[in-house]
Amino acid sequence: MKIILASVGKPHEAYVKAGIEDFTNRIEKYFSVNWLIIPPLKNAASLSEKDLKKQEATAILQQIQKDDCLLLLDERGKLLSSPELAQLLQQKANESTKRLLILIGGAFGVDETVNKRANYTISLSKLVFPHMLVRLIIAEQVYRACTILRNEKYHHI
Amino acid sequence: MKIILASVGKPHEAYVKAGIEDFTNRIEKYFSVNWLIIPPLKNAASLSEKDLKKQEATAILQQIQKDDCLLLLDERGKLLSSPELAQLLQQKANESTKRLLILIGGAFGVDETVNKRANYTISLSKLVFPHMLVRLIIAEQVYRACTILRNEKYHHI
Repeated sequence: MKIILASVGKPHEAYVKAGIEDFTNRIEKYFSVNWLIIPPLKNAASLSEKDLKKQEATAILQQIQKDDCLLLLDERGKLLSSPELAQLLQQKANESTKRLLILIGGAFGVDETVNKRANYTISLSKLVFPHMLVRLIIAEQVYRACTILRNEKYHHI
Repeated sequence: MKIILASVGKPHEAYVKAGIEDFTNRIEKYFSVNWLIIPPLKNAASLSEKDLKKQEATAILQQIQKDDCLLLLDERGKLLSSPELAQLLQQKANESTKRLLILIGGAFGVDETVNKRANYTISLSKLVFPHMLVRLIIAEQVYRACTILRNEKYHHI
């Protein structure tokens, strides 16, 4: 299974870049993984929130293949524990999923079309985190999930 | 009100340091704030988990003054939203709390004596985060709380 960590926005900001790269490299030991950074729309400032989400959705959906499993991170999603996230990864790998795409939703959520395409919608926390920090958090959580599945020492129960 | 962000462990690791410093500086515009890093015990490896927590508790409790409000971050605590955390900060400031000490619990939790001393126990997420990342997350959340209380643009509802 290939894991694709996807996010609409600018390249990783300096304050999270080293951590994201480190955890992403660590995930490589378990799954093929890469980041898909979809550049923000150039005319974003002139668009209404609704139109912005709609146009972002078009850019996002273009990147998603028919058989991809789409895991959407959205604050309206289900709160999972780290072992539950690990279980979900295991289940997808067992089902011979070719590509698991984990998409970080925007600050205002995502357009309805993306919501509908998502196979799972999960929330990292009741707290709201900045987009850049979510990238670091999800990279760490996917790495943690890998170590949980292999019964490795990183995660304390 | 002075906010003290407290953690047992090593100095901030490189991958979170810049972010922690940035958010801590930003909090300074609203509240006096500083980090209290309590060095880990030198004989930690030779202690049982229980004894380790007990000895850490002694080091922690020495730093806490009688009138401090102690907010413990622990995965067994209550899940708050960002606006709820902001409300709690506001409430403490309104009550003329002199020092609000926000303590990051250890990987195995904290000793019962610290649990008992805590005025509030909250959890950042059902997910488990590494200690260093929790430092970055709480610094960002306290900053976010400040902007929520001042109705500033940073937090989107």
